[in-house]
Amino acid sequence: MSVGGRLDLKHGRVDMTHGGGGRAMARLIDGVFRDAFANPRLAAGNDAAAFDWPGGRTVMTTDSYVVSPLAFPGGDIGALAVNGTVNDLATAGAVPVYLSAGFVLEEGLPLAALCGYVHSMARAAEAAGVEIVTGDTKVVERGKADGLYINTAGIGRVPDGVGPSCDRARPGDKLLVSGPLGDHGVAILSARADLALDAGIVSDTAALNGLVAEMVAAAPDVRVLRDLTRGGLAAACNELAQASGVGMTLDQAALPVRREVAAACEVLGLDPVHVANEGRLLAIAAPGDADALLAAMRAHPLGREAALVGEVTDDDRRLVEMRTTFGGRRLVDWLNGEQLPRIC
Amino acid sequence: MSVGGRLDLKHGRVDMTHGGGGRAMARLIDGVFRDAFANPRLAAGNDAAAFDWPGGRTVMTTDSYVVSPLAFPGGDIGALAVNGTVNDLATAGAVPVYLSAGFVLEEGLPLAALCGYVHSMARAAEAAGVEIVTGDTKVVERGKADGLYINTAGIGRVPDGVGPSCDRARPGDKLLVSGPLGDHGVAILSARADLALDAGIVSDTAALNGLVAEMVAAAPDVRVLRDLTRGGLAAACNELAQASGVGMTLDQAALPVRREVAAACEVLGLDPVHVANEGRLLAIAAPGDADALLAAMRAHPLGREAALVGEVTDDDRRLVEMRTTFGGRRLVDWLNGEQLPRIC
Repeated sequence: MSVGGRLDLKHGRVDMTHGGGGRAMARLIDGVFRDAFANPRLAAGNDAAAFDWPGGRTVMTTDSYVVSPLAFPGGDIGALAVNGTVNDLATAGAVPVYLSAGFVLEEGLPLAALCGYVHSMARAAEAAGVEIVTGDTKVVERGKADGLYINTAGIGRVPDGVGPSCDRARPGDKLLVSGPLGDHGVAILSARADLALDAGIVSDTAALNGLVAEMVAAAPDVRVLRDLTRGGLAAACNELAQASGVGMTLDQAALPVRREVAAACEVLGLDPVHVANEGRLLAIAAPGDADALLAAMRAHPLGREAALVGEVTDDDRRLVEMRTTFGGRRLVDWLNGEQLPRIC
Repeated sequence: MSVGGRLDLKHGRVDMTHGGGGRAMARLIDGVFRDAFANPRLAAGNDAAAFDWPGGRTVMTTDSYVVSPLAFPGGDIGALAVNGTVNDLATAGAVPVYLSAGFVLEEGLPLAALCGYVHSMARAAEAAGVEIVTGDTKVVERGKADGLYINTAGIGRVPDGVGPSCDRARPGDKLLVSGPLGDHGVAILSARADLALDAGIVSDTAALNGLVAEMVAAAPDVRVLRDLTRGGLAAACNELAQASGVGMTLDQAALPVRREVAAACEVLGLDPVHVANEGRLLAIAAPGDADALLAAMRAHPLGREAALVGEVTDDDRRLVEMRTTFGGRRLVDWLNGEQLPRIC
């Protein structure tokens, strides 16, 4: 993936936009990490790396979780740290199997709170059918780390014949999302002390491997799967458009958004397509597979509100556009600034 | 592994001793993590988890790196983050293959510094023969994260017939270390602005997988391999004594310690057996394997100063003792307090 624009590697500094899931983050990854660690697996731009291992195709992924606050309506950092990594494996088409867990603890964190988050991880792992098999703890001085940062890495096995990848979207393919957009981001914002927002919305954090298993059974050749996290649907579509060399058109009227989330976004000046999710995915499938895939998604508890939301277009500029409810068209860009940091 | 004493899970808080590699850390891991994530692989107490994977025995490990300062004589956080995880795989008897990398970046970190650490990781990965195949970046606000925390996880393959494990030490077995103790810890301390220490010592950070390959070729049934990190040789011996249900006796006169490190430890009131290393390992082997193992170690550049330093004893109390140079005996305990935090 290559994103236009340059980083000032000589005089620049890390700023919050580099963590927001938008264009600045993509540039940082492109300019600093992909360049240094040059290898085909990393260059592919998937959230998980796939490789041949004796005995079969295997994937590996990692994510650090720095969400603030540590607990929020519908979940906490522990559940997020398991579900997020399970989802990166699942959307690589893999059956998640083992996770590692690395903890950076802040001096002064109550042990009772730590136990709560750790047990939340254990419950999430059990629910997802994965085992946390190895771990590490470090402690940093008071004032660092906001209580607790967690990294999880995971490995999983890919069934034969399954191989979704971010570079496989083709013009004419259909875009499907698994459920309402923006619940997680709005739940986090409503839990922040500095925002007087009581939307009654809970995070959508959930492990999607069960849903993906049903989807893959219905449409083994699903082209792309991507869980929607930082930067929301807009960031995912732009990343995938870049990686596949295509454009995309979203249909605003078809996008599932809860009334309360839409209202909260209105108040905060956010567009739900930019807001983070932690239990939703985007699937891209050939036209002939779309109906079967949508039916399989809707038959699963985590896909009951799945919807067909747009299609892939032939566009050398790799633009993502929205057909608005009023019949117009507008660009759905990456976020440029800092919108919702520390959301995962 | 079970360590005596109790945590106050109801009213206690995380303090710096929980990260020091001593008894407090062992209690935290025992009381909080091992309990919640109950599974046989974690319960084994190895630095890496081993499991059967289609095609062969596989290991997985993780470590977070929070060293301060980020650069120090002989290395930096980037080299450390690769070598430390490679070493956890190697000392599980595995051939390290793939790493993941998770970055928590502090707002304000100069991009030029970040590039430097990332390229240092890339060089270390190339030297160790591993690939960094997947990654993640998060950004936290200014004042958090001391510039940069890095988590790496890794996977590797275990050759048939090799299976070192921390519970396999038996009375009569020999203890061997691969080189001088304490270089890394003293190098870090000398790099800290608040310590006027110029020992001229450089960190021993290095990938040990090449050394381990030679050792395993010479003695495939080596019982235990453990890289010596936080808490030094003393913590490693105590952990292994607990896990194997044995005692150990170290021979002070046989312990390799550089003159400059000994002098710096004298000034700082430290015992080199408690000081961190990042490129040294402890091997435990049956008496009949010890000579061949020592010869193989000394034939490798990273084991040239390897030494036979003690033996495993039959001791239900699982004590680690030292035969001092003056002919006496003293206990080599875990550290109880905070000695050298943020050293890895």
